[in-house]
Amino acid sequence: MKVIILAGGEGKRMWPIQTDKCLIPFLGKPLLYHNLKKIKENIKDAQFIIVANPKSKDAIEEITRQLQLSYTIAIQGQPKGMADAILSAKDLIEGEVLILNAEDQLDADVYEAVLAVKADLVITGLKVDKYFPGGYLKVTGDPTSPRLRGTGRVQGIVEKPGEGNEPSSLVKLVVDYFKDGKKLLGYLESAQSDKDDQYEVALDKMIADGMDVRFSEYDGVWIPLKYPWHVLDIMEYLLSKIEHKISPKAKVSDKAIIEGKVVVEEGARVFEGAVIKGPCFIGKNCIVGNNTMVRESDLEEGCVSGFNSDITRSYIGANSWFHTNYVGDSIIEGDFGMGSGAVLANLRLDDHTIRVKIGEEMIDSGRHKLGLIAGKGSRVGVNAATMPGVKVGPSSLVGPGVTLYGDVPDNKKVLVKQNLEVTEHSPALTSYDQFRDKLK
Amino acid sequence: MKVIILAGGEGKRMWPIQTDKCLIPFLGKPLLYHNLKKIKENIKDAQFIIVANPKSKDAIEEITRQLQLSYTIAIQGQPKGMADAILSAKDLIEGEVLILNAEDQLDADVYEAVLAVKADLVITGLKVDKYFPGGYLKVTGDPTSPRLRGTGRVQGIVEKPGEGNEPSSLVKLVVDYFKDGKKLLGYLESAQSDKDDQYEVALDKMIADGMDVRFSEYDGVWIPLKYPWHVLDIMEYLLSKIEHKISPKAKVSDKAIIEGKVVVEEGARVFEGAVIKGPCFIGKNCIVGNNTMVRESDLEEGCVSGFNSDITRSYIGANSWFHTNYVGDSIIEGDFGMGSGAVLANLRLDDHTIRVKIGEEMIDSGRHKLGLIAGKGSRVGVNAATMPGVKVGPSSLVGPGVTLYGDVPDNKKVLVKQNLEVTEHSPALTSYDQFRDKLK
Amino acid sequence: MKVIILAGGEGKRMWPIQTDKCLIPFLGKPLLYHNLKKIKENIKDAQFIIVANPKSKDAIEEITRQLQLSYTIAIQGQPKGMADAILSAKDLIEGEVLILNAEDQLDADVYEAVLAVKADLVITGLKVDKYFPGGYLKVTGDPTSPRLRGTGRVQGIVEKPGEGNEPSSLVKLVVDYFKDGKKLLGYLESAQSDKDDQYEVALDKMIADGMDVRFSEYDGVWIPLKYPWHVLDIMEYLLSKIEHKISPKAKVSDKAIIEGKVVVEEGARVFEGAVIKGPCFIGKNCIVGNNTMVRESDLEEGCVSGFNSDITRSYIGANSWFHTNYVGDSIIEGDFGMGSGAVLANLRLDDHTIRVKIGEEMIDSGRHKLGLIAGKGSRVGVNAATMPGVKVGPSSLVGPGVTLYGDVPDNKKVLVKQNLEVTEHSPALTSYDQFRDKLK
Repeated sequence: MKVIILAGGEGKRMWPIQTDKCLIPFLGKPLLYHNLKKIKENIKDAQFIIVANPKSKDAIEEITRQLQLSYTIAIQGQPKGMADAILSAKDLIEGEVLILNAEDQLDADVYEAVLAVKADLVITGLKVDKYFPGGYLKVTGDPTSPRLRGTGRVQGIVEKPGEGNEPSSLVKLVVDYFKDGKKLLGYLESAQSDKDDQYEVALDKMIADGMDVRFSEYDGVWIPLKYPWHVLDIMEYLLSKIEHKISPKAKVSDKAIIEGKVVVEEGARVFEGAVIKGPCFIGKNCIVGNNTMVRESDLEEGCVSGFNSDITRSYIGANSWFHTNYVGDSIIEGDFGMGSGAVLANLRLDDHTIRVKIGEEMIDSGRHKLGLIAGKGSRVGVNAATMPGVKVGPSSLVGPGVTLYGDVPDNKKVLVKQNLEVTEHSPALTSYDQFRDKLK
Repeated sequence: MKVIILAGGEGKRMWPIQTDKCLIPFLGKPLLYHNLKKIKENIKDAQFIIVANPKSKDAIEEITRQLQLSYTIAIQGQPKGMADAILSAKDLIEGEVLILNAEDQLDADVYEAVLAVKADLVITGLKVDKYFPGGYLKVTGDPTSPRLRGTGRVQGIVEKPGEGNEPSSLVKLVVDYFKDGKKLLGYLESAQSDKDDQYEVALDKMIADGMDVRFSEYDGVWIPLKYPWHVLDIMEYLLSKIEHKISPKAKVSDKAIIEGKVVVEEGARVFEGAVIKGPCFIGKNCIVGNNTMVRESDLEEGCVSGFNSDITRSYIGANSWFHTNYVGDSIIEGDFGMGSGAVLANLRLDDHTIRVKIGEEMIDSGRHKLGLIAGKGSRVGVNAATMPGVKVGPSSLVGPGVTLYGDVPDNKKVLVKQNLEVTEHSPALTSYDQFRDKLK
Repeated sequence: MKVIILAGGEGKRMWPIQTDKCLIPFLGKPLLYHNLKKIKENIKDAQFIIVANPKSKDAIEEITRQLQLSYTIAIQGQPKGMADAILSAKDLIEGEVLILNAEDQLDADVYEAVLAVKADLVITGLKVDKYFPGGYLKVTGDPTSPRLRGTGRVQGIVEKPGEGNEPSSLVKLVVDYFKDGKKLLGYLESAQSDKDDQYEVALDKMIADGMDVRFSEYDGVWIPLKYPWHVLDIMEYLLSKIEHKISPKAKVSDKAIIEGKVVVEEGARVFEGAVIKGPCFIGKNCIVGNNTMVRESDLEEGCVSGFNSDITRSYIGANSWFHTNYVGDSIIEGDFGMGSGAVLANLRLDDHTIRVKIGEEMIDSGRHKLGLIAGKGSRVGVNAATMPGVKVGPSSLVGPGVTLYGDVPDNKKVLVKQNLEVTEHSPALTSYDQFRDKLK
């Protein structure tokens, strides 16, 4: 069984996060490590074909080495869609093929389900309760799996049908089984489209040609990594699986409080009065300072959370430092620093869901709580505040005292110019009242 | 004995607090509950006549029910002064009558004192050390009570005589005994005045007509509820009377510290590292979060004081939430929220007493410490700061980073527009110095 | 042996610190106390001649009284340089003389070394590794001391030779021994110079006249007190010498944490959850509040560090108060106050060393961490922030919410005038997005 992992995507909606999506580390390991490990454990004798981009090749090789995988890497020179990705591994494909996304979080039983019935093509449909803007399966009969072993067939795929027009409650995932990989290649090569959907066109053609196309119904977890805030969803999912483990090489004060399932890696130090509420991951050499609270978060290695910080439901990339800060529901890529008293607001005063600017569009994240999204090497100065869902580009500085409502591009410095009024100070003056009157 | 409780007042100086003054909850019960309970316990066989306004009637009935009082409610349609309030209960009044304000805090022995000698009319005078702008008693001889049993008489009442012109050191309270309620009604009905003082006119006429008008001297606690900051005085008084009691249905961490007399009601949770210094009331289902300190304060039910807050000498109405805040000497009506890092300043840098705008006037509160006065449903954003004695109307928002010197009306949103300067950031620049130079 | 202590200097580069340099208290005693004590203990039968200015005389007498010194005070009317200072003690000088600066921190063995060989004149040279802009010794042969007992001679003193042109690696300190004090006076009186260097001119003349001028080589600690940030260096040096001692008259909660060598003086109180990390000095009657951390700092008497503050590597003069603040690497003269949430930033976001304006010049302090330098009686309001190396004059106020990039002169009040936008608040509006769009 060849398992094709599509890991060459560019993640253009992920700005200011610039790490290749499948290489973003969670719990001390790249996302792809977690995913390949799960697939290896659940698909016997899988031979991996990993489609990478030129930049990610080395890091992916390191992952496969650590996992002792049987693998080949194919390089997709340009990110030109799914069909192109598969075709870039053309010479490696033969026999049975399973196609998977590199980043999607799925429960492990999804693989067994799709492989349970070996039709020409088995497509996995996610059962949804409410409308999702994806591709819907048009089907007849019962699904082949997981339990039903039905004989239902896929009759077509309808892209974003609009709410109320869904042909079924099944949204197509990228968990596709093909009995004959060579045949797939043929269809992909002859698929013509001026949109980025040659893969879908090929599938439609297979259906139209009368191939035996079945579907597996899946109602477990599905978390894609399309927008930056999905990092939080993936983190939450991965944290939910951890086992409690404090490294004997970590140093945890007996006056610190650790609740729930918490991983503390070697070299990490947890000071007096610190509180860690699981599930939580504290990476190598991290410092959780006095009176600091960390909850349901992932601190990658080398982070320092100084005195009196509160880090809640946040993803914190390596080598970031904090000091008397509130960090809620934030995504911090790493090498980040915050001055004392700076706050990453995560909740609107009017309680609306939080919208994020992606490219030129405002996208509703659907979240009521979402903090800052910060690129690598960025800084937020003392007593600054960033508004929910705002983004700061790599190596940019948000100056002291700034209240930041909008995004900051890469390599910029934002300082506030205050209108200061300097007057004589004499204890005889009732200074505030006079100032207050002036403001009226 | 009929005890008339004047509970129909409108509290127009109380903005932005909009709850009927006598219904403001303290220690989990409306103010009127505390007062009626004390009166009931100290005046045998009292039959209560409560003059309410149309809006407060139901809530008052609930209070009387809980206290199992013998009572009647009279409705005063419009708040038209004390004489009108009494006359609105006209049909219920006969025989001996004691007239009391609904909100005043008085030591329990004041009732016994005024009732000790049964003249036609016994007026209670508060002994004062320094000038107070109220009505002064002009008297001869010794007071009838509490201990002296003197035969002194009241010869008149002088409104706001001005400092140095006081006819005695006794300021008239509203603790007045009348032997014949019907006679009082007659005087009130014939009292003519174009100011809001028919009650005082009626009393003057009684004195002039040669009735036996005596006075009781009182030197205990008297706390009116005229201005919002009086809420703090009443709270302090009521807290001084509490008995220590942690509900068995509350959950208090053994790593929390509780000092002095503290009430923690059922469902409340107190986390590790929290400090509660009594006297303090923590209402039902409140949360006192990690490393939070609450001192000498009243948290009504459902309040959440998250990580690292400091709530000191403050009145916090129900369902308010805090997160890394300083709340000092503040009056918060309820349903209030504060973003992380927001501060309610309670002390002027120049140490002056704090003046508060009441209507169009600036009134000196006489307090050196006074924080925010916040109406129901208001919000203060992250890293905002409100200046001492400032008021925020119901449902209004003080935006992130705002430094608020003036009052905010109802249903308003105040945002700061910062002048931000965005420049390239290059590590080669000594950026702050350059910026500093520009500011010169 | 006469020991002349030069304590009359004016410290004009020390603004806003106005206390006479040698009288700045450290560890509860004036700097001069520490220095005289060390000299007394290390130079047998020293007779002190202390050159003071008119203002410091009384305080210096009190110090000598406490130390039971054999001393005389000479008054230098105007600060007119070192020669003038010595000449103002003219009548007291005879026989052997050692000349020392009042403020320099030196290891105790420097005295023994310079006194080891009794030439006509023995000059102490500090061995330096890299260029320092001072006076360099031009020497031949080995130093007389400390260990070598060499017979080397001083041939001249070269002021600020420039890097690469140093005649030796020895920078002249003010630790000079003269066998005949009267002879020194003669040379000083005839030294002519229109710069402030008569002392150096006199020494040059002595060398030129063929006197036996030797040198002692010193490679220990030398800390001058020229710029305000040197207060931190001196503090660090003195703290490094303390012995752990908690006064039995101090009250330290058993829920506080004390690590390392810490002095807590009588009357001081340390509350629950407080953390003191030594070396640290907590003066008389200080309060270290709940959850406050103090590290490697000197808190002179009567300081109150309220809830949740972090005071790190800072010098805090008497009677200063803090409340939920970050105070890092700062020099606070005393009677200082900070509102809740105010931060004294000590680190540039771009990590450059911190430059400080001294007079009209920007001087690089060489420090990567340096906070505020605050004169006596100054204040910083709630949620204000001061930038690294900024200075605030005595009795000046930095208002709430101010982000301070420049220095504030004496007796000034700096308030920020924000541009506030007040609009209707309706829950139907997506308020932040709209505001964010406007800012674009």
